[in-house]
Amino acid sequence: MASLKVLNHPPSPSEDAEQLHKAFSGWGTNEQMIIDILAYRSAAQRNSIRKAYKEAYGEDLLKSLEKELTSDFERIVLLFTLDPAERDACLASQSTKKSSSSNWIFMEIACTRSASALLEVKRYYHSRYKKSLEEDIAHHTTGDYRKLLFPLVSTFRYEGEEVDMSLAKSEAKILNEKIKDKQYNDEELIRIISTRSKAQLNATFNHYNSSFGNAITKDLKADPGDEFLKLLRAAVKCLTTPEQYYEKVLRLAINKMGSDEKALTRVVATRAEVDMVRIKEAYQKRNSVSLEQAIAGDTSGDFKRMLLALLGAGDI
Amino acid sequence: MASLKVLNHPPSPSEDAEQLHKAFSGWGTNEQMIIDILAYRSAAQRNSIRKAYKEAYGEDLLKSLEKELTSDFERIVLLFTLDPAERDACLASQSTKKSSSSNWIFMEIACTRSASALLEVKRYYHSRYKKSLEEDIAHHTTGDYRKLLFPLVSTFRYEGEEVDMSLAKSEAKILNEKIKDKQYNDEELIRIISTRSKAQLNATFNHYNSSFGNAITKDLKADPGDEFLKLLRAAVKCLTTPEQYYEKVLRLAINKMGSDEKALTRVVATRAEVDMVRIKEAYQKRNSVSLEQAIAGDTSGDFKRMLLALLGAGDI
Repeated sequence: MASLKVLNHPPSPSEDAEQLHKAFSGWGTNEQMIIDILAYRSAAQRNSIRKAYKEAYGEDLLKSLEKELTSDFERIVLLFTLDPAERDACLASQSTKKSSSSNWIFMEIACTRSASALLEVKRYYHSRYKKSLEEDIAHHTTGDYRKLLFPLVSTFRYEGEEVDMSLAKSEAKILNEKIKDKQYNDEELIRIISTRSKAQLNATFNHYNSSFGNAITKDLKADPGDEFLKLLRAAVKCLTTPEQYYEKVLRLAINKMGSDEKALTRVVATRAEVDMVRIKEAYQKRNSVSLEQAIAGDTSGDFKRMLLALLGAGDI
Repeated sequence: MASLKVLNHPPSPSEDAEQLHKAFSGWGTNEQMIIDILAYRSAAQRNSIRKAYKEAYGEDLLKSLEKELTSDFERIVLLFTLDPAERDACLASQSTKKSSSSNWIFMEIACTRSASALLEVKRYYHSRYKKSLEEDIAHHTTGDYRKLLFPLVSTFRYEGEEVDMSLAKSEAKILNEKIKDKQYNDEELIRIISTRSKAQLNATFNHYNSSFGNAITKDLKADPGDEFLKLLRAAVKCLTTPEQYYEKVLRLAINKMGSDEKALTRVVATRAEVDMVRIKEAYQKRNSVSLEQAIAGDTSGDFKRMLLALLGAGDI
């Protein structure tokens, strides 16, 4: 359910590398050519282009792009061109260097990536930063945030579809008791959410809904001023219905005065090859306007063209 | 530093499988032949023998061994024959079904295995038990034990040799403060021990020793009746000097009235292919008698012969 439109018979990686090199040469940069190539290639193809570019011109393609491009357009091209594991590792590492919003990035990476994708992020983190993702997140977070984020990011979650219904029942009851008592940082609650498989959690939340009258995400709205609760609720959404979580991030980013380009960029770059089709459906349903139209009305220039290309609507 | 003596030119896996099948046939079982084959083959070779046996006779070799053998000899042959990841997954899974000593098994697996070996255990656990090692350990443990064991087992530790000396200094200070105040379950203390690389921890503990006058393992002896503190101290030893930890487990197992065959079996089966040579050195140094002699004097029959073969002293 990727929105990315990958060419069936793309040029060879060295031809693409040559075209990109041409796009950087002469007077000004040919931004459209950069979009036409990079926004229509899969992660594996982009990696091959980077290798071919490095061999032909002795410089990392990312470095060349960094020199040529600026502002929001630069950010989305660089972020999207990265290999997914490398991209997540970079996002996480940047987040350990600042305070604002970093917990949300850690949560997104921990909850919306598959177990094997998250493992690749950890492997890349080792090789690039010479330390573990877990130690950096544990070191960078404190209190309840660490208590929640550390197990979320460190567990190698089981991904099979098997469900233990009696466990779903007993753990739904535990969750309900803790949430009723507003013990949102309770260790049993966090254990369940951070270690059970997504299929098992889905069964548990279904049981919660039918036994206690409300969806768990509704009960987790009890305290709108509680920032930790917001993050916990978002984690629950990311684990079961990530497209709804991302729809909301996009909606807030677009509706914000001046729009939040960083959030827009992050969501489109990280989800275009994963589940953007579902996110677009959720967006259309919730806002009665297509995501492409909303983004087209809110952004401009090469940044807008790159976003729309990644959404599979390059010719809107 | 494995003690296991693997033949340079062993028979083919199907020849070994045939010999094993013969050892099970006729009147009585030929235990010596079982030892002569399985105790002199590497993990990869034993896997090949299992495959060849299954193909030739339609039954898992482990099943056949289980039928033929009994008691301590059965246990060590079965445990050793398993693939290391499978063996650890079985040990961990068995531990989630009983209360006594399970925390120690979890700790050993979490702290003495390499990051990649631990990952293989997690993968095997997924495929065999249809859930994650982390969720079972988190579910099975409580309180301070969970607080310590969960991050130990879940972190994908960095294994490079790089060390940040200023971090070692600042974290040695944190450890010293918490230990002085007897806050052994402090979350910063647990964060450091459960997430930093072994090389980094080694530097931190060295700094601790030279700055605060005692080895950290000595300061962690303050309260001999505190079971959690014992486990924490053992984890610190396993992360930095596993041979000293295992020497002590063996010493206690051998010196115990009647000896502790389960502990003997577990240590020999899990370390024969890893670091048993170092453990033997540590044993000789601490007890002024070789581990082989101590075990020979304390066990008997096929069990003794299998242990000694795995220690590389089959002809003692």
